[in-house]
Amino acid sequence: MSLDSVLNRIDDQLPSALERLKELMRIPSISTDPAYDDDCDRAAAWLVKDLQSIGIEAETRKTPGRAMVVGHFNGSEAANTPHVLFYGHYDVQPVDPLNLWDTAPFEPEVQDAPNGQVIRGRGAADDKGQLMTFIEACRAYKDVTGTLPCNMTFFFEGEEESGSPSLIPFLEANKDELSADLALVCDTGMVAPGVPSIASQLRGMLKDEFTLHGPRIDLHSGHYGGPALNPLKEISRLIASFHDENGRVAVQGFYDGVEDVPAELLRQWENCGFDEHEYLSSVGMTMAHGETGYSTLVQQWARPTLEINGLWGGYQGVGTKTVIPAQAHCKLTCRLVGQMDPDALRDKIRKHVEDRLPKDARVTWNNSLEGSPASVMNTERPEFEKARQALSDEWGREAVFSGMGGSIPVTRFFTDILNLDSMLIGFGLEDDAIHSPNEKYNVESFHKGTRSWARVLDRITQA
Amino acid sequence: MSLDSVLNRIDDQLPSALERLKELMRIPSISTDPAYDDDCDRAAAWLVKDLQSIGIEAETRKTPGRAMVVGHFNGSEAANTPHVLFYGHYDVQPVDPLNLWDTAPFEPEVQDAPNGQVIRGRGAADDKGQLMTFIEACRAYKDVTGTLPCNMTFFFEGEEESGSPSLIPFLEANKDELSADLALVCDTGMVAPGVPSIASQLRGMLKDEFTLHGPRIDLHSGHYGGPALNPLKEISRLIASFHDENGRVAVQGFYDGVEDVPAELLRQWENCGFDEHEYLSSVGMTMAHGETGYSTLVQQWARPTLEINGLWGGYQGVGTKTVIPAQAHCKLTCRLVGQMDPDALRDKIRKHVEDRLPKDARVTWNNSLEGSPASVMNTERPEFEKARQALSDEWGREAVFSGMGGSIPVTRFFTDILNLDSMLIGFGLEDDAIHSPNEKYNVESFHKGTRSWARVLDRITQA
Repeated sequence: MSLDSVLNRIDDQLPSALERLKELMRIPSISTDPAYDDDCDRAAAWLVKDLQSIGIEAETRKTPGRAMVVGHFNGSEAANTPHVLFYGHYDVQPVDPLNLWDTAPFEPEVQDAPNGQVIRGRGAADDKGQLMTFIEACRAYKDVTGTLPCNMTFFFEGEEESGSPSLIPFLEANKDELSADLALVCDTGMVAPGVPSIASQLRGMLKDEFTLHGPRIDLHSGHYGGPALNPLKEISRLIASFHDENGRVAVQGFYDGVEDVPAELLRQWENCGFDEHEYLSSVGMTMAHGETGYSTLVQQWARPTLEINGLWGGYQGVGTKTVIPAQAHCKLTCRLVGQMDPDALRDKIRKHVEDRLPKDARVTWNNSLEGSPASVMNTERPEFEKARQALSDEWGREAVFSGMGGSIPVTRFFTDILNLDSMLIGFGLEDDAIHSPNEKYNVESFHKGTRSWARVLDRITQA
Repeated sequence: MSLDSVLNRIDDQLPSALERLKELMRIPSISTDPAYDDDCDRAAAWLVKDLQSIGIEAETRKTPGRAMVVGHFNGSEAANTPHVLFYGHYDVQPVDPLNLWDTAPFEPEVQDAPNGQVIRGRGAADDKGQLMTFIEACRAYKDVTGTLPCNMTFFFEGEEESGSPSLIPFLEANKDELSADLALVCDTGMVAPGVPSIASQLRGMLKDEFTLHGPRIDLHSGHYGGPALNPLKEISRLIASFHDENGRVAVQGFYDGVEDVPAELLRQWENCGFDEHEYLSSVGMTMAHGETGYSTLVQQWARPTLEINGLWGGYQGVGTKTVIPAQAHCKLTCRLVGQMDPDALRDKIRKHVEDRLPKDARVTWNNSLEGSPASVMNTERPEFEKARQALSDEWGREAVFSGMGGSIPVTRFFTDILNLDSMLIGFGLEDDAIHSPNEKYNVESFHKGTRSWARVLDRITQA
């Protein structure tokens, strides 16, 4: 068979592939709201049927939450090819605020836009459109060759947007069935439009939350203002103490385990097409506000952070209430890199706070929040270089191993539970508005994404 | 006539006076909730009838909100006595949380308690019980002498607990009718049990509120954590900058107009029976947290403050949201003393914040919040020393000119609109639980409070 025939087939079938994607997008599979449980089931069933239509043995599998979709193709006659597991998720984010949508979120439309056509609607990019790039690549293979280029497992979950509560138990219970040589994941983006990207390092995360307790009860600021310890003032002091004037985290030992970016990778990043000006100005910033001495991209991909995500106490209504509240609250997350140990870090942050408590104050911590270390992909595996070449061929410019500021926990579970390396290739763009109103996916991302997977599958199944 | 006869009459009539107070307390005159509008009307009508029963020409007067009660007595034959205006309020605070009440809030009961009998129920102390001490003193005068010791105006409002929206227009519209020589107000407390107190200085108040704006939209902490300006971190830095390490407000010029407490007043305060340990420990504090070098009492009565009353931004729900919010919010109030000018102070605070804004941040202010300077009562008037002697006689210990941490705005309106000095005498105690469940008023406060007013009226109407 020839790769060109497969790519031609993809080109020919683009209109019907878009129709299939629209069908899937019309199902409001919002996993965070139980009102949409049946729709999640419908989306899972739709995927089972679609996988079956290209010869894959697929079924939905019950969990205490939303169903998993598992499909197997073991009919490959090619020798010495890797068995790949492809992961995606069929659930989507809620759509509110609905009034900010220009179209109905679950009535997808292909529209003309300044940078080419887009398909607009909830799930277009996250993750229905991306997930379908892989399925459409397989369909084209099947149409042209009557088979698929290697044995495959398909694994789709329906709880990614709601914290994946069933994922770990399911992986543990179905370890053998899900065993493979390499996981492929299509849930990431490109560094810049037209720059094919393999996400090779993801920051980890530590979550913590504390309440600062001052007076035994809320006090009146007339009667106690002056002598009273004010938890809002004190929590502000504590939070202000987390960073020094250069934007460095001032918690002792915070940077233990942080590693410098290798020079070769840094060179790749510098030339990866990341548009710093666009990245900053699109959200109203004129400069990077992180650690002095690091580029915007390095601050985002390769430096750890301590961010305050929630802060509250006292009166929030209209007008004034002369209250000195008994408590103040803070939610924080850290993004971790290198070998930073989330458990050790949690202790350091808590010590930092406890060492700085004023007299008559105490702190309580939320002990239900977990952490996960950073992930670095195993780019030494030959499939990474092969994929990089395949992507470079498709997009006509060198593909990059990019960093990622966020975390994709599933890759860590694949490593820990299935002993499986992951390769993350995705075609999302900065302006796709995932999790926001008017989500879209460029038709180019969908079309060339599908072609990219065909090329990647072709390349990694060759010696 | 003899003062002793009046005092004896008060002693004899205590049981029926308590019954009258209970009648008034049974009317749920909550002014903040329109569901109780009719009850507010009933309370006003009850007062009119009660005033009429002692020969006072009284009526309710309509306002856009709750009615005012105005009563006049002009039949005094005593020459050269001052015309006094007595102010109180018949409305009460809401009663929630209802489950924390041990008795029904509007079914008042006289109960035995560790420090003597109390009358328990909403409004017992704030302000129905206090207001009735004055009326009962007048009733005893009337019973014994057939008249009152001087000409009087009675002025009760029903919106004190809901911001007094009708007060200023009513005073302005009825300036002539309400003119008098001295206002008497019974809505304050005693410094300590058994220590008769005339509140001679009240702190003023400045209210302000700002929003700190950072990124144009809420950001994801994976994608923007590091480079992004985090408004929660920045607002914490700003708030932390409001005070120095000695608890002094670090806003430039903040203390302009602050005056030291005169040595003689300070001596009175030092011996006023204020129980610092009880004041602090009752709310879980072991020390005063205000300005170093000032006593707890001075911090509360005579030093200005800048307190944060509300602080919020980002995610406040259960668990974690990896958000860097676009905005953070802060509500603050200052308590003012001496000659501090609220308008000038507002400008200084705003400048302090604006001078410390990081790049890419901006601040917006709520311009709808007002301020009022501190009030110092005109204790040079002879009535103050006379009242102090009268109170000392009744309570068997020297009465004090006390400070007050809070503000009683009506006294300022009397000064500004009616050109009328106020004298604030009240018998409330720290543990009366005003605004809280299980509000009470000591029967001793009610009884000796009534006797106190008889003595005060007797003394100030003598040469």
